[in-house]
Amino acid sequence: MKLIKLPQLAGAALLASVAMALPALGQEEAAAEVVEMVPDYVPIFNTVLFLVMGFLVMWMAAGFAMLEMGLVRSKNASMQGLKNVAIYAFAGLMFWLVGYSLMYVGVSDHGGWFGTFAPYNFPEPGADPSEAGYSVASDWFFQMVFCATAASIVSGTVAERVKLWPFMIFTIILTGIMYPITGSWQWGGGWLSEMGFSDFAGSTLVHSVGGWAAIAGALIIGARKGKFEGGKVNPMPASNVPLAVLGTFILWLGWFGFNGGSQLALGTIADAGDVSRIFANTNIAAAAGAATVMILLQIIYKKVDVTMVLNGALAGLVGITAEPLFPSVPVAIFVGAVAGVIVVVGVPLLDKLKIDDVVGAIPVHLLAGIWGTFIVPLSNPGTSYVTQLIGIVAIGAFTLVVSAVVWFVLKLTMGVRVNEDDEAIGLDKAEIGVEAYPEF
Amino acid sequence: MKLIKLPQLAGAALLASVAMALPALGQEEAAAEVVEMVPDYVPIFNTVLFLVMGFLVMWMAAGFAMLEMGLVRSKNASMQGLKNVAIYAFAGLMFWLVGYSLMYVGVSDHGGWFGTFAPYNFPEPGADPSEAGYSVASDWFFQMVFCATAASIVSGTVAERVKLWPFMIFTIILTGIMYPITGSWQWGGGWLSEMGFSDFAGSTLVHSVGGWAAIAGALIIGARKGKFEGGKVNPMPASNVPLAVLGTFILWLGWFGFNGGSQLALGTIADAGDVSRIFANTNIAAAAGAATVMILLQIIYKKVDVTMVLNGALAGLVGITAEPLFPSVPVAIFVGAVAGVIVVVGVPLLDKLKIDDVVGAIPVHLLAGIWGTFIVPLSNPGTSYVTQLIGIVAIGAFTLVVSAVVWFVLKLTMGVRVNEDDEAIGLDKAEIGVEAYPEF
Amino acid sequence: MKLIKLPQLAGAALLASVAMALPALGQEEAAAEVVEMVPDYVPIFNTVLFLVMGFLVMWMAAGFAMLEMGLVRSKNASMQGLKNVAIYAFAGLMFWLVGYSLMYVGVSDHGGWFGTFAPYNFPEPGADPSEAGYSVASDWFFQMVFCATAASIVSGTVAERVKLWPFMIFTIILTGIMYPITGSWQWGGGWLSEMGFSDFAGSTLVHSVGGWAAIAGALIIGARKGKFEGGKVNPMPASNVPLAVLGTFILWLGWFGFNGGSQLALGTIADAGDVSRIFANTNIAAAAGAATVMILLQIIYKKVDVTMVLNGALAGLVGITAEPLFPSVPVAIFVGAVAGVIVVVGVPLLDKLKIDDVVGAIPVHLLAGIWGTFIVPLSNPGTSYVTQLIGIVAIGAFTLVVSAVVWFVLKLTMGVRVNEDDEAIGLDKAEIGVEAYPEF
Repeated sequence: MKLIKLPQLAGAALLASVAMALPALGQEEAAAEVVEMVPDYVPIFNTVLFLVMGFLVMWMAAGFAMLEMGLVRSKNASMQGLKNVAIYAFAGLMFWLVGYSLMYVGVSDHGGWFGTFAPYNFPEPGADPSEAGYSVASDWFFQMVFCATAASIVSGTVAERVKLWPFMIFTIILTGIMYPITGSWQWGGGWLSEMGFSDFAGSTLVHSVGGWAAIAGALIIGARKGKFEGGKVNPMPASNVPLAVLGTFILWLGWFGFNGGSQLALGTIADAGDVSRIFANTNIAAAAGAATVMILLQIIYKKVDVTMVLNGALAGLVGITAEPLFPSVPVAIFVGAVAGVIVVVGVPLLDKLKIDDVVGAIPVHLLAGIWGTFIVPLSNPGTSYVTQLIGIVAIGAFTLVVSAVVWFVLKLTMGVRVNEDDEAIGLDKAEIGVEAYPEF
Repeated sequence: MKLIKLPQLAGAALLASVAMALPALGQEEAAAEVVEMVPDYVPIFNTVLFLVMGFLVMWMAAGFAMLEMGLVRSKNASMQGLKNVAIYAFAGLMFWLVGYSLMYVGVSDHGGWFGTFAPYNFPEPGADPSEAGYSVASDWFFQMVFCATAASIVSGTVAERVKLWPFMIFTIILTGIMYPITGSWQWGGGWLSEMGFSDFAGSTLVHSVGGWAAIAGALIIGARKGKFEGGKVNPMPASNVPLAVLGTFILWLGWFGFNGGSQLALGTIADAGDVSRIFANTNIAAAAGAATVMILLQIIYKKVDVTMVLNGALAGLVGITAEPLFPSVPVAIFVGAVAGVIVVVGVPLLDKLKIDDVVGAIPVHLLAGIWGTFIVPLSNPGTSYVTQLIGIVAIGAFTLVVSAVVWFVLKLTMGVRVNEDDEAIGLDKAEIGVEAYPEF
Repeated sequence: MKLIKLPQLAGAALLASVAMALPALGQEEAAAEVVEMVPDYVPIFNTVLFLVMGFLVMWMAAGFAMLEMGLVRSKNASMQGLKNVAIYAFAGLMFWLVGYSLMYVGVSDHGGWFGTFAPYNFPEPGADPSEAGYSVASDWFFQMVFCATAASIVSGTVAERVKLWPFMIFTIILTGIMYPITGSWQWGGGWLSEMGFSDFAGSTLVHSVGGWAAIAGALIIGARKGKFEGGKVNPMPASNVPLAVLGTFILWLGWFGFNGGSQLALGTIADAGDVSRIFANTNIAAAAGAATVMILLQIIYKKVDVTMVLNGALAGLVGITAEPLFPSVPVAIFVGAVAGVIVVVGVPLLDKLKIDDVVGAIPVHLLAGIWGTFIVPLSNPGTSYVTQLIGIVAIGAFTLVVSAVVWFVLKLTMGVRVNEDDEAIGLDKAEIGVEAYPEF
């Protein structure tokens, strides 16, 4: 997302063209008079962008739910569904209660480190101002669904053993405080954006943040019982592959909103063309990620594990998210293909490190997110590798440390992990009371 | 939905601003001349609203299908899928054949009680008039998907024992006649709208209508064999929780179209801002419904039944539907939270009354719909509690009585219920010939 | 899709109305000056059409995946998911690498028979030209998702026995070369379009092309082991009906994008009205297809096989795709209903011919596609039955012959079919290494 809102520039350009178009009135006079009239449709288009791209991103909540319900074992599938619904619900409440203001309101008053602790008030009905260049309520909606995405990433990694309510408390802190604070550094106009860091749609601000929070959780909660026993990695296969395929398609679809909407403007053909270019690059990076994983798996293992291919597509999407506008198609393919390699290398690497990441969220969202953020300067001339690294490290360190503290405090107080019996019978029976597939 | 179409007002406002912007032409003259030119994009935006929000509402048909296929037992899942496809198909045909005209055309000619019995003719290609402020075909599409929604509600309640064809005949009468008649009273500009009743997107006109039709069916068809035997309530658990989660996310997504599209106008930033505000309130009420149910279940039962949480989110959505624009966020939270309480109280209450509502549609759509309609005056100053009650009672009485008559006549003639053997082996084998999951 | 882009006409009309609206400037002068200003929003609306309708068509990839994963047996469901993800990924890459240029660039230079072998270059960021009347990158995106659709059709027919990589090579040739060549004849402005052939959104260019490629595959690969053994047709029932229902709803939703977006223009109320009319006709034809199949099955078999009803809805959609704009509603119902009859007749007919079409794609996409294309002159006065037949035969012959050659070469070189043991244990274990539902 860009900090300088293009609609205003677009409006200015429009005024100029209108002024040229009405010479009989005198250019100055015409421009002054026409201010009220011409850009009327510009903020409407921008609002349409936020709403339509926003509902696509909202739909990603369903994508995460399906992906994770498909990848966990059936005895934990109801719990995974509940957590994903609850994440989206609580994220929406928290981002109104404190998140949005903390991320976007008055950040410069606090040295660029955080905004304001306050609920966000929408304009009265019929009174959404056009000066912003878009409806402010539509902006809230669009930013809210981004925040929910970050939290959805965590639930996949720590699935099948984390307790419901400690997890929800972590989600509340992540969506209400942690994500907004690091977000304020960049999209809120804070110190990282001042420095020239660039993360168009959130490879770092959303995906790596989710990934760092997830890795902290995985380390403190520990691996699932039996996962790394007997000195080897015991596979715990996905219980419902079609759901995982569905989830991936949902996420792929939603990502057009994620990246396309982050253009933040649709009121000129230049912006509309950029959104289109972003759609194309986003799609191509995902395709390259999936294709790369398919080919590598065939060469290495002679079998093409579909769940790895799904993660390859997702990693391509995460990778291109930091800069989906500037890359040429070959560069977009390169970014997506390397993200695919990261999945093929990263999943067994985590197993070797005995980090139990149930759905592969850490390679997909954290590692591919770092990759995508780092490689921005390859295509975007206004950025530098050093600044990109500073942003990656700063946001990573903050999120990792604060997440670890929160998970640790939760562990000491409420406990974060179900007991061994509950883990063995599954969280569905233990905490939900409803099995996912009681008849099968 | 509002009866006075805002686009026309918006057009007027635009003309005024244009007139001010072109003083060299003389205001009167400019306004007269510019009439043809300026609002050209306004009806396009309005049409975009109907089409985009309309396809989201169409998608709710899939949401109901998934929710209901997930919540029934697997021996009836194919039938539940068939019914939901058939409902959407027949609703589309009936709403063209008679429904739209009966609801919207010439209502004032019949004292505000019903419109015209006639098929609806679309304009010729290229000839959709802009005077309406929107494409009339897009309006038909948007209203049609609403009508289909009302019918989808019924199928969940009477699932697992109703015969296919009697159910389809009921659906045809509901979508072609009953829904359009009560709809004409309010959205067709009839007597209820004259009286000042307010139901923005259909808590009563759509959801309670579906709920009343469902309760009439549940009473006349009777409970599933074994549900209330032995003096207790025998649980018949959902066969596929992930499908129910998916269905809920689909419905949540579709509801942005349901409520947002009911603004009926997008051609000004004021309207675009209102649509955005509606998105935000809709989301927050659903979140509050889900969160409330989670917390209450934890306190009361120590286990958080995911299917109840799903119904909590849906009840929040139904509740806010009568007035998603005016509430401040705290009021939207209040409306959604109370709807959640209604689910927690309502589901066991129906069991006590021995009304067998397979998916919980009556608490969600009927009770939360009544709640949402009744509470409109809390935020909308132009409404009164008395008028709201009159609308709730009038539409409820009409739908309950006519539904009961239709179900009763069907019972006497064709029979509405499969025989005991067919119910025991499941409707899939008995009426479809295809099992949902033959290999499991 | 129309070859003459309406936006340009629309722009002209707008200029005329603006000229009339600014008499003080003199009409000629005003028109000249205003050229730069007025139609600014027109290319934005057109781009919005391509992007929004395009993401709906992209979503159809998920629809095919769900439909096919539901209709195959569970031992092949993971493979079917993998193929559908891979199709979408490779189609996207190929349509950039060669497909788009081969279909649209310089077709007239090659006598109207094919375009240019070259990758497609998008405009630089911020430089998408408005002269085209839309963002060219959005057009690429919209055409790309169409291409992917054609390939998705094939995978359903040849499921459960085709080897992964030969199938992928066929997909690459289909999406990179075959589909673009026949596409260039019509939508690229080639010889068929010169002749007056009409195929609005691709009953022939997309659906029949997929169907012809599928039938060639089915013939050369052969039937599944056991399907036609013992002189009778052995049913191999769908393993997961809810997934098939979901897939059908996704496709139905996506079809609004498929047909609606093929209007190619949204910048005037006339175009917006036409898109709306297309939405309505598309929905009604699908409804008529589903309803017709339901009624016929009840009469003929006394049981209503839900998977046949799903195919009835899809056949209605395929049928109306050649001309969704001109038909009156009764004609749209007729087109959809006949398509439904084609499914009821076509599925057992293929069994009689011992052509093993796992999901029924040949009746739905090929036969209903031929029907829809042939019947265009009934409603569109500018077309002739003879020309329609020439187009159907020419595209069919080319696709059938080239597909057969490709499948045959693949058979001789790599082999196209898994061995009997692998077919018996299922492609999931044999080629993927991951079962779809390992716990059931």
